[in-house]
Amino acid sequence: MEQINDIQVVPCTNSNYLKPFRVHYSQNGTKKSWDFMRTHDSVSVLIFNTTSHCFILVKQFRPAVYMCEWERTKAPEPAMQAGVEEEGAAIPETPISEIPQQEAVATAGGVKTPQPPGSAGMTYELCAGLVDKADLSLEEIARQEVLEECGYDVPVAKLRRITSYSSSVGVTGAKQTMFYAEVSDENRVGEGGGAPQEGELIEVVKVPLHEAMTFAYDESVPKTMGVIFSFIWFHNNMSPKYKISTNV
Amino acid sequence: MEQINDIQVVPCTNSNYLKPFRVHYSQNGTKKSWDFMRTHDSVSVLIFNTTSHCFILVKQFRPAVYMCEWERTKAPEPAMQAGVEEEGAAIPETPISEIPQQEAVATAGGVKTPQPPGSAGMTYELCAGLVDKADLSLEEIARQEVLEECGYDVPVAKLRRITSYSSSVGVTGAKQTMFYAEVSDENRVGEGGGAPQEGELIEVVKVPLHEAMTFAYDESVPKTMGVIFSFIWFHNNMSPKYKISTNV
Repeated sequence: MEQINDIQVVPCTNSNYLKPFRVHYSQNGTKKSWDFMRTHDSVSVLIFNTTSHCFILVKQFRPAVYMCEWERTKAPEPAMQAGVEEEGAAIPETPISEIPQQEAVATAGGVKTPQPPGSAGMTYELCAGLVDKADLSLEEIARQEVLEECGYDVPVAKLRRITSYSSSVGVTGAKQTMFYAEVSDENRVGEGGGAPQEGELIEVVKVPLHEAMTFAYDESVPKTMGVIFSFIWFHNNMSPKYKISTNV
Repeated sequence: MEQINDIQVVPCTNSNYLKPFRVHYSQNGTKKSWDFMRTHDSVSVLIFNTTSHCFILVKQFRPAVYMCEWERTKAPEPAMQAGVEEEGAAIPETPISEIPQQEAVATAGGVKTPQPPGSAGMTYELCAGLVDKADLSLEEIARQEVLEECGYDVPVAKLRRITSYSSSVGVTGAKQTMFYAEVSDENRVGEGGGAPQEGELIEVVKVPLHEAMTFAYDESVPKTMGVIFSFIWFHNNMSPKYKISTNV
């Protein structure tokens, strides 16, 4: 899963997935503009297996995370090329080099940086999906994702809403809604792993309850804030039920 | 601050802030592509004022959040036009209508939807900023943002690192590092409010400690996950010191 090679980066002028728009508006009489992207809202699900007392996460290769990691190894200078949120950020027009073959290197400040291992782009995340089916409720979409990515068949009625919030407020502003689902080994009806026909290659990962808080705050484990927040939410809200002894 | 009008949305083919790239790669021998955007890493700061026992947040108009809210009022169908994370998502090529004047309406499914009030795009966030100065440490950048946005002069040594995580893993994969800073009224040296010359118009907001957990989980208050997570982190880690009586 972590064999990543033949990396080539090219500017992308006509993406089907990333479509920038510009909104002109007036705020208290002052004319402004902002570039943003439209995307779907999303759902995420904290899954707790009551048989094994483990959290069920997904782990997958994230090209964007990988490219950021590579860029970061070109330290001391984080030579990013696009400023998103800061109005005054200047964007150098230097095209990104094409990076051929497995033994690719990137250069920054005259220092060649070897391609990092594929593990540098592997990210631990909550099971999640886009809200892109108009006829389904958020709970139904969450249920489908749990089944597709993690192989558990959870009744909609067992999904508990944790909360919702705005994500990527500078770029997409999409709303994310987080759920909690308790499952048991009896609910396991498949392997999960995502939809290979859509390019998904997802590893289902178990994090034992007693290791969860250490996992949450271990910065050497690449993860989303959703993982950290939801583990702590569980600690605060479910610990009487499951007798967690770890401290936050 | 919340007077938003003269809204006009246009496709944006040459954004200085949003520059899509495409990475071609091979994962375990299977060729894949992914569209992503490069951006800077960022820092955020949970600020607690020990004089007034309040959290200090920033509130600002977020065009992307506003546009999402508007889109959502066109229910029952969330007719989004761009799928970001799902490989199979088809993007209709329909251009977004230009929306003239204050009394703008949008149409979806034949139903006209009036423009929502500016408050629909106002978002509560942690004080935050981009890591775009190569000669400054994360702590120094965080310190500058606290001063610029909130008007508090905090010594770098008083910034406590909470944790870090990957953000927008499907799009940017940037790393965010979160800090905690205790300030007092004596550290207040300015009004904050951001850099008007960069188009920033930021309201500094106080959330009393005893209202924080209610605020965190009130879904009618638009906010980022960073606010929710950091309030709960404070609750778990600082409550002995500040005698919080609220339950999570």
